[in-house]
Amino acid sequence: MKRREFFKNSSLLGLGAFFLGAESLKSNTIREEFRHKKTKNIIFMVSDGMSSGTLAMSDIYSKRILGKPSAWLGAYQDDLMQRGLMDMASKTSIVTDSAAASSSWGGGHRVPNGNLNIGAKGEEYEPILQKFKKAGKKVGCVTTVPITHATPAGFCVNIKSRSDQAVIAEKYATLDFDVMMGGGQKYFDPKSRKDKKDMYAVFTKKGYHVAKNKSEMLKAQPNQKLLGVFTEDSLPYSVDAKTLGTDKTTPNLLDLTQKAIEQMKSHSNGFVLQVEAGKVDWAAHGNDFAALLFDQLMFDSCVNHVLDFAKKDGNTLVVITSDHGNANPGLVYGKGVDPLFDNTVSIKHSNDWILQGIRTDATEKEIIDRLYENSGNMKISTEHAKEIIAYYKDVQAEDGIYNPKHLPFQLLSKMQYGHFHVGWNSMNHTSDYTELAMYGPGSEHMKSFMRNDQMHNFLLKVAEVDMLNKA
Amino acid sequence: MKRREFFKNSSLLGLGAFFLGAESLKSNTIREEFRHKKTKNIIFMVSDGMSSGTLAMSDIYSKRILGKPSAWLGAYQDDLMQRGLMDMASKTSIVTDSAAASSSWGGGHRVPNGNLNIGAKGEEYEPILQKFKKAGKKVGCVTTVPITHATPAGFCVNIKSRSDQAVIAEKYATLDFDVMMGGGQKYFDPKSRKDKKDMYAVFTKKGYHVAKNKSEMLKAQPNQKLLGVFTEDSLPYSVDAKTLGTDKTTPNLLDLTQKAIEQMKSHSNGFVLQVEAGKVDWAAHGNDFAALLFDQLMFDSCVNHVLDFAKKDGNTLVVITSDHGNANPGLVYGKGVDPLFDNTVSIKHSNDWILQGIRTDATEKEIIDRLYENSGNMKISTEHAKEIIAYYKDVQAEDGIYNPKHLPFQLLSKMQYGHFHVGWNSMNHTSDYTELAMYGPGSEHMKSFMRNDQMHNFLLKVAEVDMLNKA
Ligand SMILES: [Zn+2]
Ligand SMILES: [Zn+2]
Repeated sequence: MKRREFFKNSSLLGLGAFFLGAESLKSNTIREEFRHKKTKNIIFMVSDGMSSGTLAMSDIYSKRILGKPSAWLGAYQDDLMQRGLMDMASKTSIVTDSAAASSSWGGGHRVPNGNLNIGAKGEEYEPILQKFKKAGKKVGCVTTVPITHATPAGFCVNIKSRSDQAVIAEKYATLDFDVMMGGGQKYFDPKSRKDKKDMYAVFTKKGYHVAKNKSEMLKAQPNQKLLGVFTEDSLPYSVDAKTLGTDKTTPNLLDLTQKAIEQMKSHSNGFVLQVEAGKVDWAAHGNDFAALLFDQLMFDSCVNHVLDFAKKDGNTLVVITSDHGNANPGLVYGKGVDPLFDNTVSIKHSNDWILQGIRTDATEKEIIDRLYENSGNMKISTEHAKEIIAYYKDVQAEDGIYNPKHLPFQLLSKMQYGHFHVGWNSMNHTSDYTELAMYGPGSEHMKSFMRNDQMHNFLLKVAEVDMLNKA
Repeated sequence: MKRREFFKNSSLLGLGAFFLGAESLKSNTIREEFRHKKTKNIIFMVSDGMSSGTLAMSDIYSKRILGKPSAWLGAYQDDLMQRGLMDMASKTSIVTDSAAASSSWGGGHRVPNGNLNIGAKGEEYEPILQKFKKAGKKVGCVTTVPITHATPAGFCVNIKSRSDQAVIAEKYATLDFDVMMGGGQKYFDPKSRKDKKDMYAVFTKKGYHVAKNKSEMLKAQPNQKLLGVFTEDSLPYSVDAKTLGTDKTTPNLLDLTQKAIEQMKSHSNGFVLQVEAGKVDWAAHGNDFAALLFDQLMFDSCVNHVLDFAKKDGNTLVVITSDHGNANPGLVYGKGVDPLFDNTVSIKHSNDWILQGIRTDATEKEIIDRLYENSGNMKISTEHAKEIIAYYKDVQAEDGIYNPKHLPFQLLSKMQYGHFHVGWNSMNHTSDYTELAMYGPGSEHMKSFMRNDQMHNFLLKVAEVDMLNKA
């Protein structure tokens, strides 16, 4: 029988029926299931400054090195999640900062870059975790950056400037939230604060269990309010923490996520938790490939844990997204790209750790050895070593909002191009629309495109909390 | 009534019911509708080398300048399309070229970079348009690059090397396909071909209507086989064609798409058409922002036309995607980014046009004026003009696969950073997973993640054509 004849006869109905039956029913069943469940809990996960290429590289690493897809893309593959793109523009620019981005979700309004739920004319927009708290839920935030940083703060407070982190710490103390954990001791410790206030004492007095290391954190009783502040500023990059073994004393983002869920999951009215991988953004600002890749992979292990929890729980909506692109990294076409990428498994440290630890009197050999040992056996020339040293000897400083010490991040990243084959389009945020994924009851309402300021009402609606912003 | 009490009482059921009723039923109705339709036609649309940021910038331009969302993201917003990500790796690398990429879809197997449906050991994989043709459908390809280029060729032929375009033109003559249109006269014209074969005569003898300009193209009778070859190499960039008015004689991608559909739409067994915006990739290789943005917008106007056709037709599956990222451009955070982006409306020409037209004896003033007039009133210094001139006087040539004349694309793009605020991560393909969207019957089977080599069987299955590749 000729193909053409085959096509014309009716036996193809059989093929069609097979196809419809075998492959498509599963996903529809899952989504159908969500319809009959309540959205009691929400876990809102943000990989800050995650460009499309960052997500892809973490999945490529997972598949090639760890032997399984990333939790995020694995859930796509299993058709468990709805996908969308989100336009994250702020009130003042196509390209947002993290404060305006988090405020757009948290307060439901676009605000000027740098503001936290304060409009251009001083309007105050009630942050979403305050609403959920009023509605009887437990609420909290965990992050790898100071807990007073823009992304958690955008779900919690109103303040004109994101940089007033000492004030944000004070505002937190008035909120009665259930779990707040991350870095930022300098905003809580009386020795570091300009006003010498002991914010730890303030929280303790309000009944909080205050933890400054992992074992203290683990001692918190379920349902006890918990403040965890583990490092002076941010938590270490995942690649550094792993190599140094600091995970034993300083919890990583997975530890924080697990504990936060543990603390709130038995609450009868449910909980709302924000989980932020804040240093994916910092790594992108530094064009720091090792820092970026392994912090994104740490975020993915949190995605894995959260999806497991949500699958068992049945009444949890999981939202996974980013607040903006940053530096749009990607592996670039070329002959050695595959083996170079596979060699990332031998990386011991971030560029941040490598550069922070260089003394002003370092020798060329020390620089060469330091990069070979820590940056995946990267070999640099004496000329390149001299260029790096020059940054420490002279005042030949690099700028950048996340580079207060003016370390030569860009110089090193450019030297690493031949070693990792990763390109960066800048050292700052980009206009890319962000990846948005949802799992669980409520996700069936998601569209393939969302404006950032629609998220606020979306979350309140699916959780059936009657405090929507008016249009 | 306190919020907490409100939450506890049952009036929220009303809110929930409102929400479920109003917003979610629409999309489900649309998808439900697809289930009861046949996938008779397939239009497979590729924006070659489109990074995530390229798509976002085209939508931002549409919204800010044209006053409406892009057709692509507008369809997301209206929840008309399913979204996925696609892993486009080739047999030999994480980062693919366009030949291996198109072959993965066209032949259903990953092949080495550079190959067209020929495996590492010489295996031949039957191209999908040959299968659809055997199944009784009309088939064709339209593109802005030579019609013998990698992306159309990957749906049509088997050949070891994508660069043998003169041979690919001969292979096309044996296929009896219905519409093949794009650039590439040098592969058809006896004056340009090494073997002096007149490929036009060969096609004419086989009953084709051969068109070399727009009016000749429009004269083709419906259902007459149509070969259209309109330019020596590729079609002009959209921004240049618009300014020069060449659209009147040389059809643009929208003209080609409209005509191709017109030619095949009344066929009782349906048709399969590939539409490629091939020069989005070339623009990215040249870090040529104006070329990139306006070619992506031209692609979007094709998306608009195709979705309109598919909505009316009811039996057409539309697939919209890219074959790989390229250079990962994006607007970068900074104070002037919004007005600088809005100023792109005043751009007259691509960097390609600007640089191709500079004579070796050009003066500094001529260079300065040329950029001001053509690149959106961009002002460059005498120093910068001197740097550009140096490329033409000396042999200070830039390399690049899509830069045969060694023009200073990167130099100009770097100078334009202050003018457009667009960053690029390289001048080549990237490992980013590509955006995948589907509309119409068959789209309801799409998952949120797909491997490129699954596309082949997917398309055959939904069209109920029994020529699947074995696993
Ligand atoms: Zn940032
Ligand atoms: Zn290319």
